[in-house]
Amino acid sequence: MSTFGVCGKLKAKDGQGEALANVLLEAAESMQSLEGCESYVVSISNTDADTVWVTEVWKDEASHAASLTLESTRSIIQKGLPLIANMEGDKLRILGGKGLKST
Amino acid sequence: MSTFGVCGKLKAKDGQGEALANVLLEAAESMQSLEGCESYVVSISNTDADTVWVTEVWKDEASHAASLTLESTRSIIQKGLPLIANMEGDKLRILGGKGLKST
Repeated sequence: MSTFGVCGKLKAKDGQGEALANVLLEAAESMQSLEGCESYVVSISNTDADTVWVTEVWKDEASHAASLTLESTRSIIQKGLPLIANMEGDKLRILGGKGLKST
Repeated sequence: MSTFGVCGKLKAKDGQGEALANVLLEAAESMQSLEGCESYVVSISNTDADTVWVTEVWKDEASHAASLTLESTRSIIQKGLPLIANMEGDKLRILGGKGLKST
């Protein structure tokens, strides 16, 4: 079972929520080929169109860290940074639940 | 594709992080039979053992709302409330990403 998670809350600059979400959806697309990435889900807050959430599930922390060294990830991060006002997040130890792959 | 998400950050009373996480894992178990619940993942913060995160993916908001009316959910919530110091969260419009079921 995957053991490492990330929950990121990104506040976009005014009116840039959708543009930021699109960049993060590009990131999600680039993760499709990464076996260590079980999920990378992009959402927008129901109460603030400029708050974008990313919830990630990774096989382990090393797989996540390795993804950050890829050129594809770096270029997407560069694309997103100008759209971000501030961000907060947490690195998580996944305990279990519904919807996780068992292997 | 599922369209409704919840990201909950629950701060447990001192030393109650694991106890709270176990209650939430019970909740996750009770969601196994709910077709509208695609995922309900329970994690603990890597930086604070008393911060528990729940990330949920639901077919739609109505499915989530219906789950809150179930006796099984209500009794688990009652069990968890005494363990919680405070909580914050957000209701999300899921845009897409990796790991979501396509139907």
